[in-house]
Amino acid sequence: MNEQLVTENIGDEIFALAAKLYPICRSITGDGVRETLREISAHIKLETHEVPTGTGVFDWTIPREWNIRDAYIKNERGEKIIDFAHSNLHVMSYSVPVRRFVSLAELQKHIYTLPDQPDLVPYRTSYYAESWGFCMAHRRFESLQDETYEVFIDSSLKDGFLTYGEYLHKGDTKDEFLLSAHVCHPSLANDNCSGMALLTHLAKQMANMRTRYSYRFLFAPGTIGAITWLARNEDKIERIKYGLVISMVGDSGGPTYKRSRRGNAKIDRAVVHVLRHSGLTPTIINFFPYGYDERQYCSPGFNLPVGLLQRSRFGQIPQYHTSADNLDFIRADHLAQSYCMIADTIDLIENDAVYCNTMPKCEPQLGKRGLYAAVGGDKHTSAANMAMLWILNLSDGMNSLLDIAERADLPFRVICSVARQLQQHGLLKCCATEAAESDALYAAQ
Amino acid sequence: MNEQLVTENIGDEIFALAAKLYPICRSITGDGVRETLREISAHIKLETHEVPTGTGVFDWTIPREWNIRDAYIKNERGEKIIDFAHSNLHVMSYSVPVRRFVSLAELQKHIYTLPDQPDLVPYRTSYYAESWGFCMAHRRFESLQDETYEVFIDSSLKDGFLTYGEYLHKGDTKDEFLLSAHVCHPSLANDNCSGMALLTHLAKQMANMRTRYSYRFLFAPGTIGAITWLARNEDKIERIKYGLVISMVGDSGGPTYKRSRRGNAKIDRAVVHVLRHSGLTPTIINFFPYGYDERQYCSPGFNLPVGLLQRSRFGQIPQYHTSADNLDFIRADHLAQSYCMIADTIDLIENDAVYCNTMPKCEPQLGKRGLYAAVGGDKHTSAANMAMLWILNLSDGMNSLLDIAERADLPFRVICSVARQLQQHGLLKCCATEAAESDALYAAQ
Amino acid sequence: MNEQLVTENIGDEIFALAAKLYPICRSITGDGVRETLREISAHIKLETHEVPTGTGVFDWTIPREWNIRDAYIKNERGEKIIDFAHSNLHVMSYSVPVRRFVSLAELQKHIYTLPDQPDLVPYRTSYYAESWGFCMAHRRFESLQDETYEVFIDSSLKDGFLTYGEYLHKGDTKDEFLLSAHVCHPSLANDNCSGMALLTHLAKQMANMRTRYSYRFLFAPGTIGAITWLARNEDKIERIKYGLVISMVGDSGGPTYKRSRRGNAKIDRAVVHVLRHSGLTPTIINFFPYGYDERQYCSPGFNLPVGLLQRSRFGQIPQYHTSADNLDFIRADHLAQSYCMIADTIDLIENDAVYCNTMPKCEPQLGKRGLYAAVGGDKHTSAANMAMLWILNLSDGMNSLLDIAERADLPFRVICSVARQLQQHGLLKCCATEAAESDALYAAQ
Repeated sequence: MNEQLVTENIGDEIFALAAKLYPICRSITGDGVRETLREISAHIKLETHEVPTGTGVFDWTIPREWNIRDAYIKNERGEKIIDFAHSNLHVMSYSVPVRRFVSLAELQKHIYTLPDQPDLVPYRTSYYAESWGFCMAHRRFESLQDETYEVFIDSSLKDGFLTYGEYLHKGDTKDEFLLSAHVCHPSLANDNCSGMALLTHLAKQMANMRTRYSYRFLFAPGTIGAITWLARNEDKIERIKYGLVISMVGDSGGPTYKRSRRGNAKIDRAVVHVLRHSGLTPTIINFFPYGYDERQYCSPGFNLPVGLLQRSRFGQIPQYHTSADNLDFIRADHLAQSYCMIADTIDLIENDAVYCNTMPKCEPQLGKRGLYAAVGGDKHTSAANMAMLWILNLSDGMNSLLDIAERADLPFRVICSVARQLQQHGLLKCCATEAAESDALYAAQ
Repeated sequence: MNEQLVTENIGDEIFALAAKLYPICRSITGDGVRETLREISAHIKLETHEVPTGTGVFDWTIPREWNIRDAYIKNERGEKIIDFAHSNLHVMSYSVPVRRFVSLAELQKHIYTLPDQPDLVPYRTSYYAESWGFCMAHRRFESLQDETYEVFIDSSLKDGFLTYGEYLHKGDTKDEFLLSAHVCHPSLANDNCSGMALLTHLAKQMANMRTRYSYRFLFAPGTIGAITWLARNEDKIERIKYGLVISMVGDSGGPTYKRSRRGNAKIDRAVVHVLRHSGLTPTIINFFPYGYDERQYCSPGFNLPVGLLQRSRFGQIPQYHTSADNLDFIRADHLAQSYCMIADTIDLIENDAVYCNTMPKCEPQLGKRGLYAAVGGDKHTSAANMAMLWILNLSDGMNSLLDIAERADLPFRVICSVARQLQQHGLLKCCATEAAESDALYAAQ
Repeated sequence: MNEQLVTENIGDEIFALAAKLYPICRSITGDGVRETLREISAHIKLETHEVPTGTGVFDWTIPREWNIRDAYIKNERGEKIIDFAHSNLHVMSYSVPVRRFVSLAELQKHIYTLPDQPDLVPYRTSYYAESWGFCMAHRRFESLQDETYEVFIDSSLKDGFLTYGEYLHKGDTKDEFLLSAHVCHPSLANDNCSGMALLTHLAKQMANMRTRYSYRFLFAPGTIGAITWLARNEDKIERIKYGLVISMVGDSGGPTYKRSRRGNAKIDRAVVHVLRHSGLTPTIINFFPYGYDERQYCSPGFNLPVGLLQRSRFGQIPQYHTSADNLDFIRADHLAQSYCMIADTIDLIENDAVYCNTMPKCEPQLGKRGLYAAVGGDKHTSAANMAMLWILNLSDGMNSLLDIAERADLPFRVICSVARQLQQHGLLKCCATEAAESDALYAAQ
């Protein structure tokens, strides 16, 4: 465990921020995103970008900005049967303004429910087709009388901006590790208040750390936000050597890792290794072109080494995209656990390197250096000694510490600390780090 | 389903032809083969070849031609206990003429039975060692008295010809798809009246189709026929890019596919893909040097990409090479099913190509083209949308539609039709077809 | 089975020699090793080497020579509660001389027992840290009174020599097959009297055989012995094309094969093939850098193709490194079985070669050469015919007999003898042996 990165109450801190972000009504544009980024800015020096409506980003165009103040459905007795003030999920995101009296039959065309989960409110959007709609519990919907309803949505859809934030932690090199969370979902705690809050605290924690790589934290609306960032940063994209999309990291499920399109990029190997030694039962899935913003990062024109880290797999739990994804669904200890997986991955990426055994002919005599038990003959050898033997045996200039950890089936942190010990005894020297192959150092600028 | 290839009553048509071919007494040479090819010629413009006895074909020599008119065994009371007129299986193929009176003990040396299947008559041959023999049901054989028997075989073994037929459907290129069926087995319905009849109707159906590849249909006796064809066509052999040996395609078993010697040639991948999406439970086996004429096509000097498609696997069903392989054993619906597998394979081979995503950076906006559902948030996405996303993601110039179908685990026909849709919207363009790498076009001749 | 190598009573002969070696008190240096090598010399022309104390061998130094005459622990009544004369396991190997009266509490610090196996005496060593100790049954130890004990070890630790023996069977080429057994364990029958005795009789049996490869038999103390040999023979090391460390080959377990560090070297493939066709249930494990002298041979500076062959896997049976590893634990029939595995491996290595089918286009006509049954149609083909068809099909200059045996899943000996038969009929010719690529022949010297 990297003690600079992981503090005792990290889980509580992440939860507290997620709880603050939860009530805000976010969409792919609008003041909800701005307010969210302001909360994040309280922790890190976030750079906020505003991209005007109409701007072309690859095949897409920044849409008009959507904001909403109020919305409800009233029955003939003037009772609000749905009220936006209770939950921002009740209004389909990007609903155009409406004030109208409608029959139940017509209302029905604009109501979204989940018949199989009759007590939950679904999350629905209509970003690119002008429409309006309400979401509600199916049971409540079925109890509605055949009467006239007043529908009211006090929203606006006007030229404005798409807003996103980014924060760059500069390392010794310009090579980057991208960490990306979507900021467009309204009151869904796990998806993705958890991811935004976790990355914020990770960035905060790294602020005073010296790192080999630079770390770019991106807080942007899903799809259009990632596309916008990619379109505006094409010149920097080749710096991205590693990347993770972070979402749904507060529940007790998984962990789940979806590999990058490359399939076995270093980031894939690193996360898979960390998860397999996490004590949990990870699910590793191959890339497929549906999901979160890895869809954009892994499009064929970029093919970046970016995977997706989650706890439960999206779409596969009943709470997904419903009102049940609330603050009861995420917990500080799960957030801390997820945080540690990412911290361990960073630790691995930072410390992986190729070492050379300085005495490659036969084993060096570990005993005379105090590195081996004096009395022999026991049928067992210690894990530390096995780590030493593996490192010495495989450090032929062809294998990195991660290669060795994989082959030895030992945690990277054990391999890494034992390698340091062998290095101190002159038995190992560093041959190459991946950083050596990277762009110019920031220091050289 | 290719509607040009597959007609509603194709199974019945194939069965009808198989039933017509069934009674004919075929062997590796002789009038039975000629009569068989005549029946086939009623449907397609078959080119028939006659190769004289004594002609050298690689390590082999065309044998003398065998014909038979009558044969029986009579007991002392003049009763025919075996009669060739009842079933041509009763005489070992290539039996020399004989008329003799023999004891039961001597007769026994010339009788073949199946003790484990006492009611069935086996199929036996002795092409290259001069001999004579009868085949009969074991139960009948055991009931024979110890008396004197008259054995009579009115056959001839004389200089003549080996006969085979071929039909070439010319496509846009000279690259060929070889479809081969053996024509040497007598009254065995599945092995191989089914294969001959299926290929005949396939060739007939293709006659008016324009195809990228040329299709060569070969109807030749097993082993010596394939060897003869290869020996006489060495100059054309490099045109063969795909090939299938077709036999035993009328029973309800399998399907079974035996890979070519190359193991993962395009034909292997195509058939395996089609069978895996056939709704049946295919058995895929690796090449081994025993079986049908794939033995010759896949000999090391040729190593052609030719596999074997069957329903039940040869040698592994009780009916194999017995009188139980009769017309009751094959059915029109199984024949139609087998036909569709081959038609789907041809469809795949014809339509596979490498496309390039014209907007490879990020996903193109499918919604504005009406290719994506307007309302988002649902946990499911449609199969058609998944096919689109897969095609766009993998169409980087490195993956053909088959590669994509395999990776996406979606049927090729879905991938192919969705690709066409994307092409119509300008999101995809064709980069390369395999045909592009092929020989000169026929048109250019 | 190679009849030159395998004699009827080979198991008894190996057992007899193992039994002779068993009582000797060996360590990594000293007269026990010399006496052991003398016994071996009664069978083969062993070359014995003496390397002086203080000699540097890579990172190591030849230690002082250890010898022991007597040792015991006496209680106050003068009764020997432990007596070296009963078992040399009672004294920790390399114990310095001691004569002292000690309390039970102090004695306890120098006593090694196995609490989980309370009736067995463990085997312990302290080669490189000056110390003394006794090993005893835990049950006996627990019965000791709290009284004063006399401890006596009449050993010497003086400048002297490290002793090892080697024997080279010269083949047609200088390319070598290394067979190595450790000679440093005292009265442990399986580990490794079995290995020493087996290799001795194998070398004896080969003496009059003409072989393609040269066979080097090495009898050296574990770790330091192998390191010494490697350090003194660096110029010859590249000759080693195959190698096996042999230990624990007399029990009924396994067989177990630990692959070389290369993982799929020819020796690995050969042993795995032999074991899989041995009729037993082999365990094949990947290389890991702990175990016997494969640790040294497979160190990254050498990376020799040397595996480890055992019956039970070291460290995984209760008898391992205890007094239960006695002559009752090994048996003549297991030794003979292990011997045959090694003999079969040698046979394979000696006879593997790449052949070319002289008639690669289509199958040659086996029938006219009497190599194929005259009557066809049966659903079965013989194993010999399948071997013929496999060899002819795969002998394209790319596959060796071992490649073919693996692909056909037939024993190498069947493939090899059938290949010889095909060669006699002119259907196969030898294209290349591995020897062809090797160093100059011995004959040319």
